[in-house]
Amino acid sequence: MKNSIFNYSAIVFFVAVLAGCASNRTVADLPISIKEIGSFHVGGRTAVLDGLPKKEVRFTPTQPPVILDPNGEFEVEQMYAQYTLVSDEKKRGAYPLVMIHGGGLSGVTWETKPDGKPGWQMFFLRNGYDVYVADAVERGRASWARYPEIFKSEPVFRTKKEAWELFRFGSTYTVGSAQRDAYTDTQFPVERFDQFMKQGVPRWVTNDAPTQAAYNALVEKVCPCILMPHSQGSTFAYNAALKYPNLVKAVVGIEPSGALDPNKTDLSPLKNVPMLFVWGDKIRETPRWGGIVAPLKTMISALKSQGGIADEIDLPTVGVRGNSHMIMMDRNSDEVAKLVNDWMMRKGLSKP
Amino acid sequence: MKNSIFNYSAIVFFVAVLAGCASNRTVADLPISIKEIGSFHVGGRTAVLDGLPKKEVRFTPTQPPVILDPNGEFEVEQMYAQYTLVSDEKKRGAYPLVMIHGGGLSGVTWETKPDGKPGWQMFFLRNGYDVYVADAVERGRASWARYPEIFKSEPVFRTKKEAWELFRFGSTYTVGSAQRDAYTDTQFPVERFDQFMKQGVPRWVTNDAPTQAAYNALVEKVCPCILMPHSQGSTFAYNAALKYPNLVKAVVGIEPSGALDPNKTDLSPLKNVPMLFVWGDKIRETPRWGGIVAPLKTMISALKSQGGIADEIDLPTVGVRGNSHMIMMDRNSDEVAKLVNDWMMRKGLSKP
Repeated sequence: MKNSIFNYSAIVFFVAVLAGCASNRTVADLPISIKEIGSFHVGGRTAVLDGLPKKEVRFTPTQPPVILDPNGEFEVEQMYAQYTLVSDEKKRGAYPLVMIHGGGLSGVTWETKPDGKPGWQMFFLRNGYDVYVADAVERGRASWARYPEIFKSEPVFRTKKEAWELFRFGSTYTVGSAQRDAYTDTQFPVERFDQFMKQGVPRWVTNDAPTQAAYNALVEKVCPCILMPHSQGSTFAYNAALKYPNLVKAVVGIEPSGALDPNKTDLSPLKNVPMLFVWGDKIRETPRWGGIVAPLKTMISALKSQGGIADEIDLPTVGVRGNSHMIMMDRNSDEVAKLVNDWMMRKGLSKP
Repeated sequence: MKNSIFNYSAIVFFVAVLAGCASNRTVADLPISIKEIGSFHVGGRTAVLDGLPKKEVRFTPTQPPVILDPNGEFEVEQMYAQYTLVSDEKKRGAYPLVMIHGGGLSGVTWETKPDGKPGWQMFFLRNGYDVYVADAVERGRASWARYPEIFKSEPVFRTKKEAWELFRFGSTYTVGSAQRDAYTDTQFPVERFDQFMKQGVPRWVTNDAPTQAAYNALVEKVCPCILMPHSQGSTFAYNAALKYPNLVKAVVGIEPSGALDPNKTDLSPLKNVPMLFVWGDKIRETPRWGGIVAPLKTMISALKSQGGIADEIDLPTVGVRGNSHMIMMDRNSDEVAKLVNDWMMRKGLSKP
């Protein structure tokens, strides 16, 4: 009896090790071998301001004030990308993975989880991909420009209520209430919601053109690659794939919210660009999400009918319940990352 | 004759290897062993906006417009820090290094050079330090808040002319002119000046208190540590050292611009906090820099007279010429980083 238990444990251990070697690496305490960490800005242009009044400004408390002339030349509409390159001997991804955040957020989306646990950046580094994490024009380290002189509208700041309800952490959020109505089965670490909100950055609704131009410049610089957009970032990723179907080797959409419209756009260049669409839980139960997903479903149908690859992982359908819009921050984020990585391996985008 | 050349080469090689082992590592193509990469936000508070008018906004081109209510709750005044932890077996720094950027900039300062070469973050990772790179309140991935409702003033955007002249890349910059008057011996990659300007972010002059509070929270979270502030960041670093002299094990000021005033502040808590002050070239020749450095010199004298350690590396005095204010981006940045690391080794802050 003892012997058979021992054997069973040994087999389980052996299978676990084998599985670990053959597919996804998640052993969190093993070091990874990194070739280089760095960043760059890409895209943008020089803008000139003229005729604005001068101001007296004190930059450092111990220093005398200086007269500030706000007129002059500025670099604007660039974007930022940080890269972490794995060492050659650890590389398994056939192409670098370019992580593209969603609206009102920055690359931090991929870097950490509100509960302090490692994010998808670490997961995919551990699995041998070079990883690029972008901050779109106007967000995070990309910087932003004076408005209305350069950016043409006012920024939008996301409220905690909007995030709570739109990202499907719970059905309702009452301002001023310590009680938030969280979904009982949510995978999002709702006790760390305020920590998540600290990741938010303002956004503009009038910067789509320079943002797309900067993403195109990023693709020209770092691809061939796999684009992994989240939410609003998908618009830029799909347009970039359409423009550079030979450079964009796959698009992994994590709850993409922006679709290409097959009635307005010829999707045939995307025939050889495999696409994955990953959906969390409670989309059907949330009317606003029905409206967001419908154009994506139209795009998926059109891609398939034209012989393209448009696979979907609908998490609740495959038995993975409770995922919010911020799948990469949910408690089971590694479980979903494995499904995504398995898909990439099946598509030949990574070595097992 | 051949033999003696061979021997000489062998000795040079041997000495070079020995020097590489015993002090600074700069071999750029060897992988480094990393335990974890991640980030977090720290500090901040919940702010409430009320009574602002609603707006109709279209977030994604393919989606219908939504009515946006700007009123609600927001997380504000937090800061961001990204960490890269070296593996235990490669650790040589006695404490993590916390890199603090200067005014109008973000943590990108430490991460890359405008010429695309690796920045000081990589240098000190290669030399076995855990590295934290901060984005102060209002900068980069820390995000910023609506003004004048939450932040109390308008942001300031640095012009290219101001950066060129203040950072001592050249004496004069004529707006609209392709010709910039660069110092002939500058170490700054002036041909990449526009790339550098893309790193700039807006700043406020009314956020010193929440910025200090967030840096204090950062020190409480990640220290004991070594603070490495650049320029305006030094104000926050010196105040944090004063408040937490047992947690801040050293302050390495890279062209610090904000000083503690010994006539207003008791500097005695800093007696056991070794301090280094690193100065680039052409400070004496630039009148504005004379005014910036004078209060620092007063602080250095006071620290020394009270038995503290306040060492200076005046680069031109030790024969290193042409360094700008952005020392960590200059062509000879590794050379200066070595001098800094040597000082930290002499102070017992890193293993040789």
